[in-house]
Amino acid sequence: MEIPLKASLLKMNAPIVDLVKKIKKLGKEDPRRIMHSFKVALAITLVSMVYYLRPLYKGMGEAGIWAILTVVVVFEYTAGATLCKGMNRGLATLLAGALGLGAEYFARIFGPKAESIVLGCLVFLLVAAATFSRFIPHIKKRYDYGVLIFILTFSLVAVSGYRVENIMELAHQRLSTIILGGATCIIISICVCPVWAGEDLHVLIVSNMEKLASFLEGFGGEIFQLPLEVESADGSNEPDKSFLGAYKSVLNSKAMEESLANFAWWEPGHGKFRFSHPWKQYLKIGALMRQCAYHFESLNGYLDARFQTSSEFRKRVQGPCTTMSSEAGKALKELALSIKAFSYPSNSAMNIQICKKAVDEVNSTLQASMVGECDILEIIPIITVISILNDIVKCVETIFEAIEELSEQANFKKSPHEPEKPQILHGGVVAPVGDKEDDSGFVTVIIHKIAPQSLEIQTLRG
Amino acid sequence: MEIPLKASLLKMNAPIVDLVKKIKKLGKEDPRRIMHSFKVALAITLVSMVYYLRPLYKGMGEAGIWAILTVVVVFEYTAGATLCKGMNRGLATLLAGALGLGAEYFARIFGPKAESIVLGCLVFLLVAAATFSRFIPHIKKRYDYGVLIFILTFSLVAVSGYRVENIMELAHQRLSTIILGGATCIIISICVCPVWAGEDLHVLIVSNMEKLASFLEGFGGEIFQLPLEVESADGSNEPDKSFLGAYKSVLNSKAMEESLANFAWWEPGHGKFRFSHPWKQYLKIGALMRQCAYHFESLNGYLDARFQTSSEFRKRVQGPCTTMSSEAGKALKELALSIKAFSYPSNSAMNIQICKKAVDEVNSTLQASMVGECDILEIIPIITVISILNDIVKCVETIFEAIEELSEQANFKKSPHEPEKPQILHGGVVAPVGDKEDDSGFVTVIIHKIAPQSLEIQTLRG
Repeated sequence: MEIPLKASLLKMNAPIVDLVKKIKKLGKEDPRRIMHSFKVALAITLVSMVYYLRPLYKGMGEAGIWAILTVVVVFEYTAGATLCKGMNRGLATLLAGALGLGAEYFARIFGPKAESIVLGCLVFLLVAAATFSRFIPHIKKRYDYGVLIFILTFSLVAVSGYRVENIMELAHQRLSTIILGGATCIIISICVCPVWAGEDLHVLIVSNMEKLASFLEGFGGEIFQLPLEVESADGSNEPDKSFLGAYKSVLNSKAMEESLANFAWWEPGHGKFRFSHPWKQYLKIGALMRQCAYHFESLNGYLDARFQTSSEFRKRVQGPCTTMSSEAGKALKELALSIKAFSYPSNSAMNIQICKKAVDEVNSTLQASMVGECDILEIIPIITVISILNDIVKCVETIFEAIEELSEQANFKKSPHEPEKPQILHGGVVAPVGDKEDDSGFVTVIIHKIAPQSLEIQTLRG
Repeated sequence: MEIPLKASLLKMNAPIVDLVKKIKKLGKEDPRRIMHSFKVALAITLVSMVYYLRPLYKGMGEAGIWAILTVVVVFEYTAGATLCKGMNRGLATLLAGALGLGAEYFARIFGPKAESIVLGCLVFLLVAAATFSRFIPHIKKRYDYGVLIFILTFSLVAVSGYRVENIMELAHQRLSTIILGGATCIIISICVCPVWAGEDLHVLIVSNMEKLASFLEGFGGEIFQLPLEVESADGSNEPDKSFLGAYKSVLNSKAMEESLANFAWWEPGHGKFRFSHPWKQYLKIGALMRQCAYHFESLNGYLDARFQTSSEFRKRVQGPCTTMSSEAGKALKELALSIKAFSYPSNSAMNIQICKKAVDEVNSTLQASMVGECDILEIIPIITVISILNDIVKCVETIFEAIEELSEQANFKKSPHEPEKPQILHGGVVAPVGDKEDDSGFVTVIIHKIAPQSLEIQTLRG
């Protein structure tokens, strides 16, 4: 009898165990979430001291609830968002409070009978106008919360002034408690393990770029794998193919990037970020990366089918195609590294040069080998992949340029061991020396200066 | 002297005039925005009656401010969002109020000295746990606002119970004013010119599909236009090319679609939408449309360059390519129409059949005409465009299937004049009969039943 009971108890526990596992995972993914929860709890406990300590309670009275209310609605995950809401709330309360008092005095002129009607009309008109202003994009983006609080405070002050006698004292109490709540939030969110929206944006852009890079680095090898190889690989030990799908999160990161950039605008300088860090440039880079990811989506369709043929043509383009893809990937990885380290993207220029060489190589292979050699329907997918890869290389170049702009704007450091740009003295593609059966179709030679008075010859087998 | 003064006054007015123009444009774009502003103002004016009317004020007292506060924060643009916030607020207030009272009584057990410490600890723990729960995706999606209000109410009740004597009366007053405010919002937002999130989602999906369709319908003609023609067209009268860029808004509509679907879930049945309308299927269709738009982005790059050659090859594929693109566009337009009219997508099946024929035609043209005829580098862009168009036709097919599913789930009406699906009896491509110089490369013949016992032969010149 005991075992079925235990089993059914275990069954009942299953959803709870699942939930606990989920919560543990959430905490592990980003431990700052746990920290944030304790920060909010700390802020609320601090402002509720107003009630616990008799001297404070005597000064503030019941207005203390406004301090708690402010903390609950103002405290956001990132410091920028908290600052944005706190400042919006403070300023809007001041402005709306003053206007509300004005409306109250204005309505009194009309005598006690008409007062409520005049007040009602004023509230109606101002609320309608303010609500409409929330549809104006610029206001929606930066001051939406402020307008909401403006509507709230104006209505409260104008309307409750009709009944409450010493409205000035009420206003003073309420404003001071709101300032107390807002200041508590801002101080805790900036001083206790701060989560900076700007830093998060920086990290997001870097990690998205790394995802794009991993896809490109792996793509060449993946698509030129024969179906046979794929099967045998599946049979023995499933390799990790997650790098091929990771880029998909880049497709939909626009909203996230924009909200982070918006909050970053409110943040003071911190760490390596100055107050006027060029956050807009991050949005530009993000847009270019999305452009790149759109091309990946087109490419991805060809991965499922893979090239079923092992024709002569496929063998010939395989080398330069793989180089094109993997070098573009390396260039992106270098760019991500340079953003991460706040340094000039000097190394990527070289990878982009190698990419371009591979593009030329593919083109000359195409031109040389086509005349009536193979089944056109069979090579169409290969040609399409090459075309799209070509577009991707162009995309990577524009990303490189945008990051160069960012380095200028944000004064990224130039490494003392490197010249400003790797100075390519000579670059070219030579015919392979090895046996013709070798898969690698070409050798790229690039001679460039890596430090003054020293030359390096880089040889690359595709 | 007067004229410069006038001029400078006009100059000073310029930003104001700009603003007025902007506001007028916002109102014209969607007159429901103006209506919404007046609805909010009406709701606030109504609940502020609590203050103006003496008998009401005596019943509610100062708790009336909670009614105003509730209206300001709960009243959202769409009925679904208002319902979501209103229900969340109401339920969270009830639950948190009860828990807060419980915490208060529990803390009293420990005697007057320890009471504040026990209360502080309880508040700290519960607030931390509730704040963390806002990171759980399911809760964030549907109950985020509820948890926020839970934190607020629990802290307020637990903490202020420490000072206020008759806490039960306070709780009763506050709850009734919140219900008053919430009910006012919900009634006004549903009864006065309601803006339904579900209807907006429906319209958004239809308009996005129309944008995709316009691009496809215009693309074929645009890309096979010779540079010479483009120039002459520019010279005389700039034609409207906006249809080529309109699809870009589809790329970033995910966040919008998800929030609308989320709010639509809360809405009661209205018009042609039942309570359990399959909103999730709209999200699926939206995702497929985005997939399609990603391919457009790849295609779009080739529009700028256009095909500079007027080679034999280009002439041969031009016909079927244009058909492929425009028929895919027509299919999408039919699909959009059928969603708009809540009817089965019967007509689109035919367009998709014609598309597929065009694909076959292009493939056979490719196969027949390639052997060493033309410069491979010149035709690579054409081949790429064909490949991507091919992928787009596949995308359109999956969109068609998803919409068929939607029709099943939402019980779309089947037109009495049409069979369930156009039953294609025979379809094929025959060689053109006209003179060989004609640009149109083929004729598609499709024989299908349009009504029982009647046959139609459709002839289509590419």
